[in-house]
Amino acid sequence: MIEYRNLRVALLGAGSVGAQVADQLLTHRDELAARIGAGIELAGVAVRDLDAPRDTAIPRELLTTDAESLILSSDIVVELMGGLEPARTLILQALTSGADVITANKALLATHGPELFEAAGQVGAQLYYEAAVGGAIPIIRPLRDSLAGDRVERILGIVNGTTNFILDRMDTQGESMEQALATASALGYAEADPTADVGGYDAAQKAAILASLAFHTLVPADAVHREGITEVTLEQVVAARKAGYVVKLLAICERLTDPASGVDGVSVRVHPALIPDTHPLAAVHGANNAVFVEAEAAGSLMFYGAGAGGIQTASAVLGDVVSAARRHVVGGPGVAESTHADLPVLPISAITTRYQITLLVADEPGVLAVIAALFQSHGVSVETVQQSVTPADPARPSGAASAATLVIGTHEASEADLAATVAALTTSSVVHSVTSVLRVEGL
Amino acid sequence: MIEYRNLRVALLGAGSVGAQVADQLLTHRDELAARIGAGIELAGVAVRDLDAPRDTAIPRELLTTDAESLILSSDIVVELMGGLEPARTLILQALTSGADVITANKALLATHGPELFEAAGQVGAQLYYEAAVGGAIPIIRPLRDSLAGDRVERILGIVNGTTNFILDRMDTQGESMEQALATASALGYAEADPTADVGGYDAAQKAAILASLAFHTLVPADAVHREGITEVTLEQVVAARKAGYVVKLLAICERLTDPASGVDGVSVRVHPALIPDTHPLAAVHGANNAVFVEAEAAGSLMFYGAGAGGIQTASAVLGDVVSAARRHVVGGPGVAESTHADLPVLPISAITTRYQITLLVADEPGVLAVIAALFQSHGVSVETVQQSVTPADPARPSGAASAATLVIGTHEASEADLAATVAALTTSSVVHSVTSVLRVEGL
Ligand SMILES: NC(=O)c1ccc[n+]([C@@H]2O[C@H](COP(=O)([O-])OP(=O)(O)OC[C@H]3O[C@@H](n4cnc5c(N)ncnc54)[C@H](OP(=O)(O)O)[C@@H]3O)[C@@H](O)[C@H]2O)c1
Ligand SMILES: NC(=O)c1ccc[n+]([C@@H]2O[C@H](COP(=O)([O-])OP(=O)(O)OC[C@H]3O[C@@H](n4cnc5c(N)ncnc54)[C@H](OP(=O)(O)O)[C@@H]3O)[C@@H](O)[C@H]2O)c1
Repeated sequence: MIEYRNLRVALLGAGSVGAQVADQLLTHRDELAARIGAGIELAGVAVRDLDAPRDTAIPRELLTTDAESLILSSDIVVELMGGLEPARTLILQALTSGADVITANKALLATHGPELFEAAGQVGAQLYYEAAVGGAIPIIRPLRDSLAGDRVERILGIVNGTTNFILDRMDTQGESMEQALATASALGYAEADPTADVGGYDAAQKAAILASLAFHTLVPADAVHREGITEVTLEQVVAARKAGYVVKLLAICERLTDPASGVDGVSVRVHPALIPDTHPLAAVHGANNAVFVEAEAAGSLMFYGAGAGGIQTASAVLGDVVSAARRHVVGGPGVAESTHADLPVLPISAITTRYQITLLVADEPGVLAVIAALFQSHGVSVETVQQSVTPADPARPSGAASAATLVIGTHEASEADLAATVAALTTSSVVHSVTSVLRVEGL
Repeated sequence: MIEYRNLRVALLGAGSVGAQVADQLLTHRDELAARIGAGIELAGVAVRDLDAPRDTAIPRELLTTDAESLILSSDIVVELMGGLEPARTLILQALTSGADVITANKALLATHGPELFEAAGQVGAQLYYEAAVGGAIPIIRPLRDSLAGDRVERILGIVNGTTNFILDRMDTQGESMEQALATASALGYAEADPTADVGGYDAAQKAAILASLAFHTLVPADAVHREGITEVTLEQVVAARKAGYVVKLLAICERLTDPASGVDGVSVRVHPALIPDTHPLAAVHGANNAVFVEAEAAGSLMFYGAGAGGIQTASAVLGDVVSAARRHVVGGPGVAESTHADLPVLPISAITTRYQITLLVADEPGVLAVIAALFQSHGVSVETVQQSVTPADPARPSGAASAATLVIGTHEASEADLAATVAALTTSSVVHSVTSVLRVEGL
């Protein structure tokens, strides 16, 4: 009769997520053992500072600064330190020693994922990362396993809680970008340096991970076209709502044929976009995340929940711990990450989408005809035009001509044609200024 | 060097779902092989009638009426015949022969699940059933694996597309129950005999499967409290919308302590309920399904998509085929279904929830006080009261007293107290009739 010893779990990091993982492992140890079919224990917790005050049930004697020794005596290693190094080196050591590894480190995966998966594949270890995208939301397993027999066509994701919170405040509370960012900071939804979030870097890392999985293709984070939300204005958000749209920062991954070269590939991009207010993603409020998936057979699916938070993210990490532990009990090598499709990542110029362009123009007869001709001459087809006269500006010299606002919705157009149109608009004598250019997605 | 032979897949049934599974296996064979890491082939397809006309790419020579021989020469058996027999016997034969089995048969699982899982466990085979609940929506894998380290507190599911379609038509088009059912039949959303759907039997089977997984407890379908939608009226749906609610047929699974006995257990039930129009489930339209999960650490999650349809359901089946095939390639026994918690399924009398009760009462002074006292004397606390005078009925004898409609919302109350209150209301001299009693969920 085989007597199983307890499975030993090493935790690297005891911060927001790590402390929660430790507490749950300690509190629900018996319950987890029953689900796994074997005993499980927290072997140790690596931190930087042994004496830092910690609000956790971790016994002092489990803390260590010697991550390497801890790894060598463990079956499962959970990396929750964040950052590229020493996380990368420690994960490689763990995998090489045959341990299964769980990480929530999207930055590391989007930068060094291929190297890590390669190392795991060589020894038959497994690298789990459900928590790296969408926090508590199960999205990695559905993409990797549930949709493994289907063909993913497109993903539209709200994968950054901070920016969704900010845009939602602007939309529902009428706050300016600055005010909304201040609210987010005050409520703990934004970091001291919010660049990674508002600049779209965090979303781009997650887009890279989602696209790699969905399209069986290596997509590094720096191949992702990235635009943050810093230039989104309250005026844009208000105007969008009036026109039946909501502004969201979307991570978009889609199959695409480059019209220039005829090459089949994928587009992976992060940018603010208008989506119809009836789209399921439009109802994702606050710091919540959601991932909308379109697959050939399954049709439209949506996965919704808390995208961050220590305890929420710990749920996803612990799901991976149970998976890894079950695999240890039943044996068998891991499943290699599948990148067989190896599709090219196409440049942003390859996409076609709809656009909404807002212009301040001279309020004179014939202007609309001039503008319409300008769009047409650049191959961009206009679908809708809304015109409103701007109230006279009291600060303006009385001799100045009055201005009108035009909101133009286009049919599908290429980025190149659209860019040429906008360039021509800015130099047109009847256009005062181009005040907003937004892509429209989810139609 | 090991040379893998192709994995052989037997298909039992080539109906709505089976034909789609066969076509995808045939069309995407190379793509699937790449994802699995081994060749895969459709070994044969068992049907009742070899000569029935079929709109599928299945070559005639793969069809057979000898399911048993087909099973014995296969590695993976996909049961898409439906019904209890011969499905049960064939699945048991397949598992006993060591094959992994995939099924979408909720009726069979909810009736003979324990026997099938037991048979699988004994030989280390695996039984997959992602398609049995929520069609294309990944919900089984998230519950079994992603949330394996968390504690599910409650599930609210829209798991029957036919009834959601009908209730949605009533809500958005103002159709009566009869009209909406006729529309559903005309559009192919309802079967010739709609009893399984409108009677809540299909939803109860799915509730049993979800509760068993979420609570690690065997819940047979006949332990599920079941009420269908046949008694829901257009008046209820319209009144609900006015009051800020939507009527949905919900499958509800929750942890509960029986107030009578103090016993910790689970409540599993299917019944029409009001949910706030701001709840994510309120936005689930048409024949779509969604499962809303509340877990201790993860918080609220929602899984949304197509709950049925041949090609959509085939997506979930093929995901299971790939999982089973990967397991064949890497080896190792299956993971036994976990029922270690073994919680009692509590009777409907154990639940407490809010209720909305609509009464037709005499339009006289003092009636409200009488009714309020009646609720109070039965231990049910009233939260809101809305009164409206019913327009005089021209058919009514002119001497008759005019009537008023009262809509009463309660605080949380027990089913027993509520039932006693309703019984007392029906015999009260100031009450003409109790026109609607609905539970309110999702608050
Ligand atoms: N927070 C979330 O909501 C969330 C959501 C999804 C994913 N994630 C990801 O989860 C990971 C962890 O995030 P977090 O918010 O928990 O981070 P955190 O609060 O900053 O905690 C980091 C922990 O790692 C330890 N650590 C850092 N560098 C170390 C080193 N060189 N050696 C040993 N220990 C070291 C720290 O030790 P000390 O305590 O001694 O300083 C601390 O305990 C990141 O990859 C993040 O992207 C977080
Ligand atoms: N349809 C959906 O949208 C959906 C969604 C989720 C789950 N499901 C489940 O999936 C399963 C299949 O549903 P379906 O709609 O595809 O059923 P279906 O259209 O009625 O097809 C049943 C198939 O099984 C074959 N069959 C039946 N009894 C047989 C027997 N004794 N021996 C050999 N073959 C037999 C039939 O053969 P013939 O062709 O010769 O008659 C037919 O090909 C059911 O358990 C159902 O609950 C269906």
